[in-house]
Amino acid sequence: MNQTSFNVTSAPFAAIDNAVARADEAQAIYGTAPGAVRSRLLRGLADALERDAAGLVALADEETSLGTARLNGELARTAFQLRGFAERVESGLAHRQIDDAAVPGAPPAGRPQLTRVLEPLGPVAMFSASNFPFAFSVLGGDTASALAAGCTVIVKPHSGHPELSRRVHALAAAVLREQGLPEGVIDFVDQASREAAVHLVSHPDVSAVAFTGSWQGGVALWRAANARPRPIPFYGELGSINPLVVTPHALAEGVDVPAATLAASITMGSGQFCTSPGLIVVRDDADGERFVEALAQSLSAQKTHAMLTPPMRTGFEHAVAHIAAQPRVHVRLAAPPGSDAAALPPAPRLFETDATSFIANPALREEMFGPAALVVKVRDEASVIDVLAAVEGSLTATLWGADDDTPGNRALAAAAQRIAGRVLFRGVPTGVAVCDAQQHGGPWPASTQPQTTSVGYTAIERFLRPVALQDAPQWVIDANGGIVAV
Amino acid sequence: MNQTSFNVTSAPFAAIDNAVARADEAQAIYGTAPGAVRSRLLRGLADALERDAAGLVALADEETSLGTARLNGELARTAFQLRGFAERVESGLAHRQIDDAAVPGAPPAGRPQLTRVLEPLGPVAMFSASNFPFAFSVLGGDTASALAAGCTVIVKPHSGHPELSRRVHALAAAVLREQGLPEGVIDFVDQASREAAVHLVSHPDVSAVAFTGSWQGGVALWRAANARPRPIPFYGELGSINPLVVTPHALAEGVDVPAATLAASITMGSGQFCTSPGLIVVRDDADGERFVEALAQSLSAQKTHAMLTPPMRTGFEHAVAHIAAQPRVHVRLAAPPGSDAAALPPAPRLFETDATSFIANPALREEMFGPAALVVKVRDEASVIDVLAAVEGSLTATLWGADDDTPGNRALAAAAQRIAGRVLFRGVPTGVAVCDAQQHGGPWPASTQPQTTSVGYTAIERFLRPVALQDAPQWVIDANGGIVAV
Repeated sequence: MNQTSFNVTSAPFAAIDNAVARADEAQAIYGTAPGAVRSRLLRGLADALERDAAGLVALADEETSLGTARLNGELARTAFQLRGFAERVESGLAHRQIDDAAVPGAPPAGRPQLTRVLEPLGPVAMFSASNFPFAFSVLGGDTASALAAGCTVIVKPHSGHPELSRRVHALAAAVLREQGLPEGVIDFVDQASREAAVHLVSHPDVSAVAFTGSWQGGVALWRAANARPRPIPFYGELGSINPLVVTPHALAEGVDVPAATLAASITMGSGQFCTSPGLIVVRDDADGERFVEALAQSLSAQKTHAMLTPPMRTGFEHAVAHIAAQPRVHVRLAAPPGSDAAALPPAPRLFETDATSFIANPALREEMFGPAALVVKVRDEASVIDVLAAVEGSLTATLWGADDDTPGNRALAAAAQRIAGRVLFRGVPTGVAVCDAQQHGGPWPASTQPQTTSVGYTAIERFLRPVALQDAPQWVIDANGGIVAV
Repeated sequence: MNQTSFNVTSAPFAAIDNAVARADEAQAIYGTAPGAVRSRLLRGLADALERDAAGLVALADEETSLGTARLNGELARTAFQLRGFAERVESGLAHRQIDDAAVPGAPPAGRPQLTRVLEPLGPVAMFSASNFPFAFSVLGGDTASALAAGCTVIVKPHSGHPELSRRVHALAAAVLREQGLPEGVIDFVDQASREAAVHLVSHPDVSAVAFTGSWQGGVALWRAANARPRPIPFYGELGSINPLVVTPHALAEGVDVPAATLAASITMGSGQFCTSPGLIVVRDDADGERFVEALAQSLSAQKTHAMLTPPMRTGFEHAVAHIAAQPRVHVRLAAPPGSDAAALPPAPRLFETDATSFIANPALREEMFGPAALVVKVRDEASVIDVLAAVEGSLTATLWGADDDTPGNRALAAAAQRIAGRVLFRGVPTGVAVCDAQQHGGPWPASTQPQTTSVGYTAIERFLRPVALQDAPQWVIDANGGIVAV
């Protein structure tokens, strides 16, 4: 629009500028289209993914090594999610309205008629994740929720699965053509440099950014979004260490089952989950030690697969070496000799420290992206709470054996709620259900906007802005669709 | 907490550090107290204001010159608002939950039990406004909504009404004592420098900021909030030019009534309203000219009162001189000779320009805080939309005579929704009803978080963060209060 400092014709980024121009043009049509247009598109995309599932999964496996079982599941989840958003559009939930009838008389009780409607923000720049080539990629949750809100999307694919991204985008483009929608509704920019990313985030016609990736990359782009003449919302999901507390009660029936369950979660997808449990808090007693012993053994038996990209494989070795080098950190499970070669799948690792060291040393709160965890041994209940407080922000916190209503467990639950977007009382944090109640996004540094979620149906709210219509004719209210909630 | 770069014992700001420490300590108690405790506090504060209304209004008038009629109304509104938030706490709306039952089977359809609850963010730093000594001040909407959310508040009073602020805070402290709540629930810091403000916003134990004031001051503090090691939400309401479109249809029954209505809104409170209509868009034809003529006459007959502070009085003269000096701007109503003396109330001013000049010159989009407006004459419907698009962000946009369902009016309504937080089809934008459907906050630069509101009951959401509880025991869900919404 009118942002004179931005050079929209800069040659190296002409492809980005063209994509944004198409998205902006499409926004005028798609943003005011009836809900039925949006839900039909979401359902069409789900159908297209499923129709080509076999070929897409094979290509994804080739590019990511994640395995066909996992990838088939992820594709099914992505289609389920697209249809779930379609249902929320159809039920009117995506554009719900609040209606206040006029009240005669003087203020404060007297008032005009007011209806609160929701306005799509405009074109969304969507940065795909490496570790979910379907569910957090071209047609993943960010795209689905933006489309449900009535926003067009400019997809920046991840370099870890370029062919798959192109193939999925081509499918999306075909669905748009079939449904008579402009190609700019889901556009695609294939430039991978940091400069290109900053250019996209800084473009005056981009209205919001959704990002899943590393803390470093995410924060750099968050700064770019804030440095614009007109700053825009930046929804960054930046990873997290996901503490899991094992109370003495959780070990009452033995250590083997919980240790095996936890080892499987730590190594799932070779540890390349943003919800991977990276911090295990156990009591410094005989049961605690038996548990850590069993966990190390169970981890050593886990088979991992190749990591997503060679830089991530190298990054994992750097991260574990950095943790191992910290004072008062003991290696509980080392890599077998020779297994750290970059060509091999990553060997699981387990480290241990004490509460005081963990709290004093910020280096111990850095994520190891891969199949590794740090055990913190604590003396008492109060120490557990201090360890959680030191974490500051995490996507999840898991409390095993905290089911009884005791003052200690109340304090523990409150401490977990203070630092996490999701608090589990059973099971493992890997695996994020797509539903209305989901919250995937924790206090900083887990996400840049901790009051929003990137999984689950309230994710739509990220791309909508309330507008109060005062004394509006009925046709204006109707033009905004939605259902009246109050 | 653990933010080592912040010097918490810096002597010049010891009073601020002490206030934040009290607020943080009180947060642990107040943030987990039942809803009944919060609503009783809100009602107690409303009662205390009303009990001392006569004395408070007299003191406010002395400090602000706003007049007892207006100030009595504002006090009534502030009490009404406190009780309104109390009602939302009592009905459970402030802490509504979303409940998803477990579904057996494999994902994506199978899932654990999930309940989405809302967690108070923590202590809120609240910067009072100059122009609403009750409703946007110590016990105004920001404080009321933060308290309803379960957050403690550290009030930074406005230097325009220091005695009133102290008096109101003393009342609040008495209510807290009466109700057995810690004084840190509503604390007070009385240091007015820019450095003190930055110190407060940067304090590691402050969790959010609410600010009403100038663009310059607000953006500086917004930057400070983002520069923290752990950035926090900054809810800044920074003023706006509030376009008002007068279509030919609006003048079908003559120009005198609409001109008088608009003149009264422009000069209300000597123009010191963030919703004051500062941009009037009229057709460049005979009726349009008659309307501008009538508006200038009506404005010249308005009596204004002294402005809030001497710097605001000087600022107004600078702002109108800056507009008058722009090319292609005509003065339609000048100040009578001698009336620009700083000791006198401000004389109303009216300027005129054309659409092309308005769109080309950003200086014409700067707010004149005081009784002044700029008329933009347009040739056709398309020009109106271009003028609105150039505004980019405004708290309100008003469309007079756009009631009929025509393609032109549809385009006009859509253009207004794109740039404003509230769109009016009748009446004037000054006066903001406190209700559920209200939205007070427009696209940047009107507010720093355009997806939130600082007036109306959804203002509570600014201070809450969703947390998904997975497979939680019932006592954990109950401890979070609220009602189940889905």
